[in-house]
Amino acid sequence: MTDAAPGRTLWVIAEGYIPSGGTGPAPAMTSHETACILNAGDAAARVEITVYFADREPVGPYRVEVGARRTSHVRFNDLGDPEPIPRDTDYASVIRSDVPIVVQHTRLDSRQAENALMTTVAFPG
Amino acid sequence: MTDAAPGRTLWVIAEGYIPSGGTGPAPAMTSHETACILNAGDAAARVEITVYFADREPVGPYRVEVGARRTSHVRFNDLGDPEPIPRDTDYASVIRSDVPIVVQHTRLDSRQAENALMTTVAFPG
Amino acid sequence: MTDAAPGRTLWVIAEGYIPSGGTGPAPAMTSHETACILNAGDAAARVEITVYFADREPVGPYRVEVGARRTSHVRFNDLGDPEPIPRDTDYASVIRSDVPIVVQHTRLDSRQAENALMTTVAFPG
Amino acid sequence: MTDAAPGRTLWVIAEGYIPSGGTGPAPAMTSHETACILNAGDAAARVEITVYFADREPVGPYRVEVGARRTSHVRFNDLGDPEPIPRDTDYASVIRSDVPIVVQHTRLDSRQAENALMTTVAFPG
Repeated sequence: MTDAAPGRTLWVIAEGYIPSGGTGPAPAMTSHETACILNAGDAAARVEITVYFADREPVGPYRVEVGARRTSHVRFNDLGDPEPIPRDTDYASVIRSDVPIVVQHTRLDSRQAENALMTTVAFPG
Repeated sequence: MTDAAPGRTLWVIAEGYIPSGGTGPAPAMTSHETACILNAGDAAARVEITVYFADREPVGPYRVEVGARRTSHVRFNDLGDPEPIPRDTDYASVIRSDVPIVVQHTRLDSRQAENALMTTVAFPG
Repeated sequence: MTDAAPGRTLWVIAEGYIPSGGTGPAPAMTSHETACILNAGDAAARVEITVYFADREPVGPYRVEVGARRTSHVRFNDLGDPEPIPRDTDYASVIRSDVPIVVQHTRLDSRQAENALMTTVAFPG
Repeated sequence: MTDAAPGRTLWVIAEGYIPSGGTGPAPAMTSHETACILNAGDAAARVEITVYFADREPVGPYRVEVGARRTSHVRFNDLGDPEPIPRDTDYASVIRSDVPIVVQHTRLDSRQAENALMTTVAFPG
């Protein structure tokens, strides 16, 4: 089944922004940006995320492993190695995997009293 | 016309999350995740949905039939066989059909007083 | 430039739902579903929209013309011939054009006090 | 690495609308439309944006440069040369680059008290 697992090994999320404030109970209602990754194949996926900025060199790779037949909803808020993603800053990300995965991008924005949501499938490079 | 029906037979929705709470009149304003499926062809579509999780083996297939020249907006909240989709849990889904279909993913989130919406065309595998 | 105009001649929007209620000043804040169409080419586009339902035969085609080098943001709320799109009803749509166009789907939902928005590029068949 | 940079050189955003009003602190909460551009390659990208309208000839190109290994979140609100994008007006845009880039479209709408968000990867022409 590994060969038939859906997906690609290169994905791009051109939008990225983590607001520093938020309302509502943490952590579910904390403003966050998420890369929802599905590895439907039969081998674990070694995933590397590189983060790009407006005015300095990219940072990374951040390393994530997604097990065989597992999904991982990676919060950019939680990435810390090599360094945290700065708040209130435009960024973009390139996601590479050694096996096919599918990546969907979601933001929950709770800066105002009511939350706002947005999502899109990432661009398969 | 069957040969010309638009779509694919394999789709992936990497994001999935059904909040347990909600506000507003049910069922229209209950938080829900939907796979909007269009079968524009002249033969009924037998659709199988497999649901993936972060920390256990996938569940499914859930079976749905979409008639010829019909749309079905499948709420993940309503899936029950082989088991309900757990609330407050990250999941992802792979959707296979025996004939071409188109799948669009939508979430209405009514955890706070005002609803939030998001949508994307699923990834065609 | 006509040959180089970006787009496709077949598009699918699998999600469709016009709520019957709304809040805020009309028409900008009336709940609506829109197919944003761009015809970047040098010939007018003759566009036909077919609308699919859950439990009856499709309706259409609805006919729209989009001039050369023009965009038209078509509100499904405003379609009337051969018949209005029913409210509070799931539907889907297939959009065909005689020249390449690009279609993006947007919903403004104002059923509750604050509006919600969602958008996705339609599926290019 | 330039050859391997992900993306395309032609992108389309068929939806465009900048509301004239807004609530919340400026500029973060001012209603805006953004083209998030990632240039992951090793050469600067010269980007040209052409804006299309419902009832007049297109305007442009607006010129933007995105450095090598940089992201630029271009607000349509801020474009001024050859002329500002009118408010409360439907538009669409075609984005061309001399090297591969990835474009994601985002709108923050703050016309009502609570903000609404939407996003989609643009259509790669």
